[in-house]
Amino acid sequence: MTGNKVETCFSPIMYPFYENKEAVVVVVDILRATTAIGTAFMNGIKKIIPVSTLEEAKEYKDKGYLVAAERDGIVKEFADFGNSPFNFTKKKVSGKEVVYSTTNGTNTVMLAKDSYKVVIGSYLCISAIADYIKKENRNALLLCAGWKNKFNLEDSLFCGALAEKLLEDENYSTICDSTKAALDLWHMAKPNPYGYILKSAQKARLQKNGLDDVIEFCHLTDQTNIIPCLKDNHLSIL
Amino acid sequence: MTGNKVETCFSPIMYPFYENKEAVVVVVDILRATTAIGTAFMNGIKKIIPVSTLEEAKEYKDKGYLVAAERDGIVKEFADFGNSPFNFTKKKVSGKEVVYSTTNGTNTVMLAKDSYKVVIGSYLCISAIADYIKKENRNALLLCAGWKNKFNLEDSLFCGALAEKLLEDENYSTICDSTKAALDLWHMAKPNPYGYILKSAQKARLQKNGLDDVIEFCHLTDQTNIIPCLKDNHLSIL
Repeated sequence: MTGNKVETCFSPIMYPFYENKEAVVVVVDILRATTAIGTAFMNGIKKIIPVSTLEEAKEYKDKGYLVAAERDGIVKEFADFGNSPFNFTKKKVSGKEVVYSTTNGTNTVMLAKDSYKVVIGSYLCISAIADYIKKENRNALLLCAGWKNKFNLEDSLFCGALAEKLLEDENYSTICDSTKAALDLWHMAKPNPYGYILKSAQKARLQKNGLDDVIEFCHLTDQTNIIPCLKDNHLSIL
Repeated sequence: MTGNKVETCFSPIMYPFYENKEAVVVVVDILRATTAIGTAFMNGIKKIIPVSTLEEAKEYKDKGYLVAAERDGIVKEFADFGNSPFNFTKKKVSGKEVVYSTTNGTNTVMLAKDSYKVVIGSYLCISAIADYIKKENRNALLLCAGWKNKFNLEDSLFCGALAEKLLEDENYSTICDSTKAALDLWHMAKPNPYGYILKSAQKARLQKNGLDDVIEFCHLTDQTNIIPCLKDNHLSIL
């Protein structure tokens, strides 16, 4: 058995059974929160303040902050923008601070805040994340935001993709069944991850609201080396 | 969309998010509790009284009951036998009532007790279970016992195998991501399910205690039409 392990937690509700304070935790909400956060930092956002409740988001808005807030994919009426990566353009976010609240993603980020480090997972910077974890030479816990505490395909698939990169390094191994399942799903989907995800429940949800145009973008790999992470209860660059 | 749906819950801790009181719930703990229960009824056991705690199991023992009790695969010292399907021979259990407590399986059974019906899932009677659910013409919720609230491969794989049988019927469909993941794992493993499960964490746990001789038996399909189910807080034949 080699030194560092890779584990995958398929839902925030399972987190207490996987919790590992010494690990780098990668929070995954591919459609769309963590991809949107990745995009925002790629486009020069200065800081994101994640908040759990819409009430908190509204309070920040009243204080004059830019606010991104959605529930079930729909932008809240008081917010400046929602949860689509396409909202976080250079023009809108470069140099700015934005308050952010989503259905699943932002709460999951805060859940892991006592870990060694929480990074924000997306395909946009997947190789950079793998390289960072290997350089830190630490355990990795891949934490899916899921959908309202249920398992989802798109986050699990990303965990398989990231686990594959980590396990290429001889210092990493896994005895974790969920990591092995994620790897098998990834090996099946790898020739066309976007095509695979078209069968997910989230595809149907986004389509219903005319928001499924982002799915292909959310599966673009290695667009940046910038990794967002949690620092002092806000998100900034690693 | 057809009338009945198939959903899969990968861990007891996720059950509140999948709960469906109108559904037939299939509890799955392939290695080994639900396979042991299936074997016991195949071998003529009259009744199983599932209990959550070892204290309860011990109390029943003191009252003169036959008791099966294990934790982490190890038979408790006060018990008559443990959790191996090989324990539940005709000679030992035919016509008997047995009290039963396991690490994951028995608690999961009781979790779903308010459903329309709780049946005990195993490959031994997988086709009989699929036929029963279709005949009832109801939703199916496949509930994995997992391992201490974590995801496991062997229970999830069984859910894929059972979902496949249900979805052959045009009255059944699924929009559930965990069911789709289980189906994909099953399609990958189907040529040799026993071989696939050799990579599971539970294989390693059982092997460590010299108990992995049951794994092949636990993947034998359609040995019986007898389906164990929960009735008035005990297990008997459907």
